[in-house]
Amino acid sequence: MPLKADAEIEITALEWVPPGAQGLVKDLRIRWALEEAGLDYRVRLVPGERSPEYRKDQPFNQVPCFRDDAVRIFESGAILQYIGEKSEALLPRDPPGKYRSIQWTYAAVSSVEPFVQFRALLDIVFADREWAEPAKPTFDHFARMRLQQLSDAVGDKRWLEGGGFTIGDLMMVTVLRIADRNGQLTPYPTLAAYVKRGESRPAFQRALSDQLAVYREHEPQGEAA
Amino acid sequence: MPLKADAEIEITALEWVPPGAQGLVKDLRIRWALEEAGLDYRVRLVPGERSPEYRKDQPFNQVPCFRDDAVRIFESGAILQYIGEKSEALLPRDPPGKYRSIQWTYAAVSSVEPFVQFRALLDIVFADREWAEPAKPTFDHFARMRLQQLSDAVGDKRWLEGGGFTIGDLMMVTVLRIADRNGQLTPYPTLAAYVKRGESRPAFQRALSDQLAVYREHEPQGEAA
Repeated sequence: MPLKADAEIEITALEWVPPGAQGLVKDLRIRWALEEAGLDYRVRLVPGERSPEYRKDQPFNQVPCFRDDAVRIFESGAILQYIGEKSEALLPRDPPGKYRSIQWTYAAVSSVEPFVQFRALLDIVFADREWAEPAKPTFDHFARMRLQQLSDAVGDKRWLEGGGFTIGDLMMVTVLRIADRNGQLTPYPTLAAYVKRGESRPAFQRALSDQLAVYREHEPQGEAA
Repeated sequence: MPLKADAEIEITALEWVPPGAQGLVKDLRIRWALEEAGLDYRVRLVPGERSPEYRKDQPFNQVPCFRDDAVRIFESGAILQYIGEKSEALLPRDPPGKYRSIQWTYAAVSSVEPFVQFRALLDIVFADREWAEPAKPTFDHFARMRLQQLSDAVGDKRWLEGGGFTIGDLMMVTVLRIADRNGQLTPYPTLAAYVKRGESRPAFQRALSDQLAVYREHEPQGEAA
């Protein structure tokens, strides 16, 4: 059970988010990696309205931040790589394997996430803007293009590189979960199955359970999940 | 002069792009890093309409791809890290310095680029869609929020971490050049000056010059730059 109050590793997480965002907030990525690596960690909860102090650790006011005795860093990709360096289970040691894994970690946040995230925002945050509905075909086009290309790349492989699970898969699965919740994966059974393989890992289940437990504890008065 | 026909390192680049994209295509990031590191490289040009074969190297059909005797990778962030591992001039060796640099490389492509890129697309690729104009205030809001946060983070520092130039700065400057060309940096003199510092590096100038030379050689008949 990696959650330990006196652990050397500290990550930040939000106290509470609305149900639509629960299970998608990015501390999940780090919790999952730490579970896979078997590394103890503690959580510093921050309120939805972060204090100006928090910006000194994270200029974009996001979670998670990560710190241990050696580093203080943010950006989930960088944190996953740092954890990967501590655990061969997450990041191969041979240069080809290592950099292919890092390549997929970047691909997830740079070549896939922006497209599925903006498309999802049209249904959620921007749903009441008059331009949201007419913009959907364009954003659908780009999101589907990337999802189809990724589906072709996964093909009949279990993980992206056909070998073991790496931080590249971990990041990609969490990105695809945004698309999945928004219904964008329905035309791509290959990707839906790939996400299911990721979600069925015990480390993912523990990470998700621990993230959701925080929200239950901090449920705003008068609001039901 | 790192451009050498028999170099071990090969990158891919586009034969030609319209003037609005010249100087922004992502092989520039890799050319720049290789110039900073003093590593020889050759360029494999691919046409705007890539062949189906190209998708085997790059599932998203993008440039650049990178290969040498050890690895075959894509995603400019992963390639910058690989080059950084070969050159302490680009990536510090101490864990805090190394991971802060990697953190900014991810921040550039994940927390800044999507916002400035989508805002720029509204003026360029999507300009003729009826929803583009009414969508601009919303996209302005998000792009400006990130640019202001980044401007605060740069502050009066020369580079993002106050120490030397790293791949984090290299990536961030190339992302901000998208915003700069689109007029998004006008309210942020701190960021405009930061971009100028990056662009004034001799390695950047050589990289840009070599990218633009390819487009001049492959200018379509009857089109002026």
